[in-house]
Amino acid sequence: MLHQNIETFIGCESSYADANIVLYGAPFDSTTSYRPGARFGPAAMRHESYGLETYSPYQDKDLTDIKVFDSGDMELCFGSSESALKDIEARAETILQDGKFPLLLGGEHLVTLGAVRAAAHKYPAMHIIHFDAHADLRQDYLGAELSHACVLRRCHDILGDGRIHQFCIRSGDREEFMFAKTHTEMHKFDFSGLEALAAELCRTQVPVYLTIDLDCLDPSYFPGTGTPEAGGVTFMQLLNAILTVSKTNIIGADVNELAPMLDASGVSTAMACKVLRELLLALNV
Amino acid sequence: MLHQNIETFIGCESSYADANIVLYGAPFDSTTSYRPGARFGPAAMRHESYGLETYSPYQDKDLTDIKVFDSGDMELCFGSSESALKDIEARAETILQDGKFPLLLGGEHLVTLGAVRAAAHKYPAMHIIHFDAHADLRQDYLGAELSHACVLRRCHDILGDGRIHQFCIRSGDREEFMFAKTHTEMHKFDFSGLEALAAELCRTQVPVYLTIDLDCLDPSYFPGTGTPEAGGVTFMQLLNAILTVSKTNIIGADVNELAPMLDASGVSTAMACKVLRELLLALNV
Amino acid sequence: MLHQNIETFIGCESSYADANIVLYGAPFDSTTSYRPGARFGPAAMRHESYGLETYSPYQDKDLTDIKVFDSGDMELCFGSSESALKDIEARAETILQDGKFPLLLGGEHLVTLGAVRAAAHKYPAMHIIHFDAHADLRQDYLGAELSHACVLRRCHDILGDGRIHQFCIRSGDREEFMFAKTHTEMHKFDFSGLEALAAELCRTQVPVYLTIDLDCLDPSYFPGTGTPEAGGVTFMQLLNAILTVSKTNIIGADVNELAPMLDASGVSTAMACKVLRELLLALNV
Amino acid sequence: MLHQNIETFIGCESSYADANIVLYGAPFDSTTSYRPGARFGPAAMRHESYGLETYSPYQDKDLTDIKVFDSGDMELCFGSSESALKDIEARAETILQDGKFPLLLGGEHLVTLGAVRAAAHKYPAMHIIHFDAHADLRQDYLGAELSHACVLRRCHDILGDGRIHQFCIRSGDREEFMFAKTHTEMHKFDFSGLEALAAELCRTQVPVYLTIDLDCLDPSYFPGTGTPEAGGVTFMQLLNAILTVSKTNIIGADVNELAPMLDASGVSTAMACKVLRELLLALNV
Amino acid sequence: MLHQNIETFIGCESSYADANIVLYGAPFDSTTSYRPGARFGPAAMRHESYGLETYSPYQDKDLTDIKVFDSGDMELCFGSSESALKDIEARAETILQDGKFPLLLGGEHLVTLGAVRAAAHKYPAMHIIHFDAHADLRQDYLGAELSHACVLRRCHDILGDGRIHQFCIRSGDREEFMFAKTHTEMHKFDFSGLEALAAELCRTQVPVYLTIDLDCLDPSYFPGTGTPEAGGVTFMQLLNAILTVSKTNIIGADVNELAPMLDASGVSTAMACKVLRELLLALNV
Amino acid sequence: MLHQNIETFIGCESSYADANIVLYGAPFDSTTSYRPGARFGPAAMRHESYGLETYSPYQDKDLTDIKVFDSGDMELCFGSSESALKDIEARAETILQDGKFPLLLGGEHLVTLGAVRAAAHKYPAMHIIHFDAHADLRQDYLGAELSHACVLRRCHDILGDGRIHQFCIRSGDREEFMFAKTHTEMHKFDFSGLEALAAELCRTQVPVYLTIDLDCLDPSYFPGTGTPEAGGVTFMQLLNAILTVSKTNIIGADVNELAPMLDASGVSTAMACKVLRELLLALNV
Repeated sequence: MLHQNIETFIGCESSYADANIVLYGAPFDSTTSYRPGARFGPAAMRHESYGLETYSPYQDKDLTDIKVFDSGDMELCFGSSESALKDIEARAETILQDGKFPLLLGGEHLVTLGAVRAAAHKYPAMHIIHFDAHADLRQDYLGAELSHACVLRRCHDILGDGRIHQFCIRSGDREEFMFAKTHTEMHKFDFSGLEALAAELCRTQVPVYLTIDLDCLDPSYFPGTGTPEAGGVTFMQLLNAILTVSKTNIIGADVNELAPMLDASGVSTAMACKVLRELLLALNV
Repeated sequence: MLHQNIETFIGCESSYADANIVLYGAPFDSTTSYRPGARFGPAAMRHESYGLETYSPYQDKDLTDIKVFDSGDMELCFGSSESALKDIEARAETILQDGKFPLLLGGEHLVTLGAVRAAAHKYPAMHIIHFDAHADLRQDYLGAELSHACVLRRCHDILGDGRIHQFCIRSGDREEFMFAKTHTEMHKFDFSGLEALAAELCRTQVPVYLTIDLDCLDPSYFPGTGTPEAGGVTFMQLLNAILTVSKTNIIGADVNELAPMLDASGVSTAMACKVLRELLLALNV
Repeated sequence: MLHQNIETFIGCESSYADANIVLYGAPFDSTTSYRPGARFGPAAMRHESYGLETYSPYQDKDLTDIKVFDSGDMELCFGSSESALKDIEARAETILQDGKFPLLLGGEHLVTLGAVRAAAHKYPAMHIIHFDAHADLRQDYLGAELSHACVLRRCHDILGDGRIHQFCIRSGDREEFMFAKTHTEMHKFDFSGLEALAAELCRTQVPVYLTIDLDCLDPSYFPGTGTPEAGGVTFMQLLNAILTVSKTNIIGADVNELAPMLDASGVSTAMACKVLRELLLALNV
Repeated sequence: MLHQNIETFIGCESSYADANIVLYGAPFDSTTSYRPGARFGPAAMRHESYGLETYSPYQDKDLTDIKVFDSGDMELCFGSSESALKDIEARAETILQDGKFPLLLGGEHLVTLGAVRAAAHKYPAMHIIHFDAHADLRQDYLGAELSHACVLRRCHDILGDGRIHQFCIRSGDREEFMFAKTHTEMHKFDFSGLEALAAELCRTQVPVYLTIDLDCLDPSYFPGTGTPEAGGVTFMQLLNAILTVSKTNIIGADVNELAPMLDASGVSTAMACKVLRELLLALNV
Repeated sequence: MLHQNIETFIGCESSYADANIVLYGAPFDSTTSYRPGARFGPAAMRHESYGLETYSPYQDKDLTDIKVFDSGDMELCFGSSESALKDIEARAETILQDGKFPLLLGGEHLVTLGAVRAAAHKYPAMHIIHFDAHADLRQDYLGAELSHACVLRRCHDILGDGRIHQFCIRSGDREEFMFAKTHTEMHKFDFSGLEALAAELCRTQVPVYLTIDLDCLDPSYFPGTGTPEAGGVTFMQLLNAILTVSKTNIIGADVNELAPMLDASGVSTAMACKVLRELLLALNV
Repeated sequence: MLHQNIETFIGCESSYADANIVLYGAPFDSTTSYRPGARFGPAAMRHESYGLETYSPYQDKDLTDIKVFDSGDMELCFGSSESALKDIEARAETILQDGKFPLLLGGEHLVTLGAVRAAAHKYPAMHIIHFDAHADLRQDYLGAELSHACVLRRCHDILGDGRIHQFCIRSGDREEFMFAKTHTEMHKFDFSGLEALAAELCRTQVPVYLTIDLDCLDPSYFPGTGTPEAGGVTFMQLLNAILTVSKTNIIGADVNELAPMLDASGVSTAMACKVLRELLLALNV
């Protein structure tokens, strides 16, 4: 008997009922101000994950050992950020209510806001750890407050001062860096300070949401993104950072800003897949 | 003395005061449902127009003989269609009020709605001639009524039955083709019927707005567009159609849906430039 | 409740039990002698079909009106043609035994041999209609008898003289054209003779297998293929040819040789999707 | 015993002594004003010719039946047009003196001037048949008289009025078209008039040099060229034109302006190879 | 009132009168021996600079704080190196005479010679600091003394021994490395020795011209260049080197050899923009 | 007198009789399971080597000082791995019998097996040093025992335990890593342990075959390969590793898995050429 064609991220073939982690894709990039295409990120990761192994020699773990469900891409309304965010929030809400770990695949970085709204609702004391080349702390961008360039500022609206921890930041306007000085904990250029932060967060067991804008990686490692910014971190640095954060009480996460069409070599998509595999394996859920 | 770097479409160096035709670019593609990138269309046309001559052997006319002003690209808000449309409408309004011919460069096809609103305000009896592969007659698309897939339907909301004339249409859902039967004049696949229509419109001197979605061209001629659709017209057919329409009382126009990054050979951008040159030369304003 | 991610060709969401037509993909290109990549054809068609409508204005039919099941891509052994062909034959056998129409998506053209073996087993009197730029009639290619360049010769081994009807052929070595003179019915360059053939085959109701190598299309329409060959047919000619053949007693078919990576514009994949949609709608099964 | 790696255009493996036709490549594009890359044309044709067959079903002839020697690419000085032209002229001179047919592969169109100088030296009564999208009749281009945009003007300096016959021309400035009216025989857009011309040239047996700028082809067929110009001819039209010219007393020829990097699909290079094969087979030398 | 479309490098909108620094583009690559395309470098940098911020978190400075005028690209004669160099020299002369800092954007590296001639005229005691993968010290290249491969040798003709300081060099023929031993100060592979040199140059306040061939960067950071050469420096190393040199009495500079079409991901152009921003901000003029 | 076009890797123009090293290309990739194209590797290296210098500043040696013969690409049967391997083995056998050093250019990694069979026949005590991202130790892959994913396992079948030394390995299934623990000497991630190994092998003067899968390099340095795997080594690390191995009694080598079409920037091909130059210069044969 023939089976209908199912496409999931490699090794993520658990049933929803059994799963501890649920992948959900948000193929949205309407507010991208420069080069769009992040909408194709989650599908490309799913599609190209078959060039990857399920086994990680870094962690000596295998995706076949854990239980992940891949719910595919949502159908989001292009042209209305609020409507898209509502749908993302609802999906995250469902997953959280079912006691599972929501792992969002963007899409542009604005999609994080939907997931953060849902997570902050369940975990009001939540902190955010943010890996990114860009501060994303603008009050608005060309008039829009719901923009990829404002997403951490919107998260700050929810969480308030001192609960957003930013790493690898190397781009923004002067005002964003000024804002960060008093409102977020910003570490410029790399992961300096992450070990100490993770130790403290471990100690307190405060809930942590991890948002990874893949452009924290140097463009030599990850050219396929809307706004590549020289001076980023290496894959090994990102991998170690993920392993460090995974020791905290992490309750939700996202990986975003892969724009696969911008890197015809496929290296960026392969990188995104490997980062996702390592993140999935690092989560102790 | 050195001069600041000015970049206009080739041969369009008139002052605003002197100009009969005004180019304005709308680098917007937030509602594009499939492959974005039309935002880069107008800048690419301006940039690559220097591979073109100002002289047309088809019309034996030269851009240096006419007076065109290029106002560059507007700064539009990504993520809010209504806000972007308002800005486009205002720009078209200004140009029309100054007694000049507004020629809009998209961007995705939704931008046409801004220009049509302004034109219909000045010319309530206006008709639209529409060249496109797609019917663009949906009531909404994934919930959005302001979508590139709905733009002619929104124009119909303004103009009503019998005043939209569609050519080259070869894609849409069944409902759109049903709608067209009673509400627009749709010519499938090619320009059949255009000569007769133009003759009638000439006779009555009714104001005509021409909107050209470049994907009316066959993808072999114009691959660089978000939703290429086989079975389109040739360059020579499009050129002849433009010359035919130019005999009517044409009061505004647009050329849209070039997504230059989708065609690395540059042929699509060169095509868009040539279509624009021929359109500019054909207008008797 | 969330659902697992299913990916089918657009509008092909019937259950296997209900379906009249079954799609099956053969992602194989090991014998491709020039530029490989056809292995990615069926997945690309499935993936990119969402840029297409389910409705055809050419036939005024909709994929939602018919019952098609998409069984996805088979896992084929690279490096062993015989093993891959056996798996394809078995899959076709199953579909035919279940009384359904097998529609194979290649892959390189050699995959046709698997399907033809199964079809000829059920329908020994079967004829083949073959659309292709290349004769594919070599006895062997660099020593291999199982090669894309020999596939119709292998079909001739099964069916014998006078039962293979070739159209659009414009490439091959001299011996292939000589062979064709006495063993197949070859129409060079275009579809001349197809109407007459189809009328005769209709009359006799002989079973017909249709194999479409998409490189029968001119490279201007379909650049994304391993061996593009100038001087081919247009989309409209191919569409009309499909409609003509669909009037015969057609019992199986395939569409092959899309190599999506060779055409970064995506036009070739969009073309393959549209050809498949029209073929599905034309089949009266 | 192992042999050194020899790379020739497919089927062109004659010794120099035996050969009737000699290929020579001029990988030069220093004066290209828009997009360079034609320097890579002849090597790409040689390299990719192995995707082609030696047999032509159009002419029922085979490259293995004729004697062609491929002398590879010359080492030309970038940055000095006069020096490059001298080397090309000397090479053509040698080939002509040895009683063989020189077939030059460009490079940008300026290289033709070197070959024409040599040919006009041997055949002072020579005419030129010129297939091109561009008139190439400027007196100078940004100060340079040795420019691809001036090459036919320079040929006119040598041959004078009435001996240059231009076809497919659809781009140039007004002055070039004016110049053509009194000094060359220009046929705009297509091959109209070629049959009559060839009949007359056949009658008189005047020596004919054929220069083919491949951008005479429509960009849909041949996107890989520096200045693609919509509105060109098809492959079948070009093939027929070559067959027509081949009946005259043709004494030299060139094929130029393939810029292979501009067309990543490889279709343009494949087209150039096929045009060259058909030209080689059509020559009765 | 509408404004004509002006395109400058981001944040470089000063008037000429007010400006301290003047950008001028030299879109020339006629002597490029391998892969051309550097002619498109300066326009691409201007065009894509809008993906960058004006603020630098590395230097905590903003382009809006300084006064830079962008004079756009010069119209240079392709095919005549001497003519192009004269025009570049004249432009540099004008800027220097007006007491402003000339910052040249290439183009191939040969354009540096025009700027160096003008600078050496005003500052006869001038030294050159040269960042490059290639020695560029050939006496001639295929007969041409004005070639990108000879540009520093030509500068040596003007300045003599001991005044050219080369860094990151990792390619050249044996003779170039021999020449360097006695005539220039060459530091192979990286920036070793730059700190000491800058300290000495600071002390003496000798005028310094800085020429940056962006291919000093490793190809992983900067693939979009004609002759990528493995083993180069990182962005952070180049940034630090620029900051080091900026402490000397720097009187002119250039940034060259971006060939944007060779890197479709856009990463190389983004890198060039960021290097230029940091250089502009580092200059204390 | 004109010469036939010869194309060799730069500086490898020795006669066969004189040569110490013989290059031979195996353009085969039929078993590639993910992205094919390595078949084009050796031709691309030959073709693009002219962008490289013959002189190495790293070793202060020049290709013109050594004697290398380039025998070009073999004609291998696509679709039959065993047949292709037999031809490769025969070629290697000939070169070894003639007392020359065989240097194989792949192609996919499976081609190594042909060379290893020949080398192990002559040198039964031989060890293999293996640089690769992938373990290549599967017993079979989708049923095929002759697959690029199994090639070192097949070598182990010949050589047995303890004679295969693997470096840079960072991908494989769990079983492969288990197998390595008892059967090969595997160094994960980088070249740790290579110095010690080379010292020991130097001491014993055991014959060493070096197989370099270029994907040992990080994808930032070498994106143009079928299965890019993040976390690899740098060019300088690979260069040092080659210099280290070159001190042993090395009797054969290969460089493989360049898939040039996957990296349109050309950087990967340039890297492969530079690695080959350094390897050729490092060999003391």
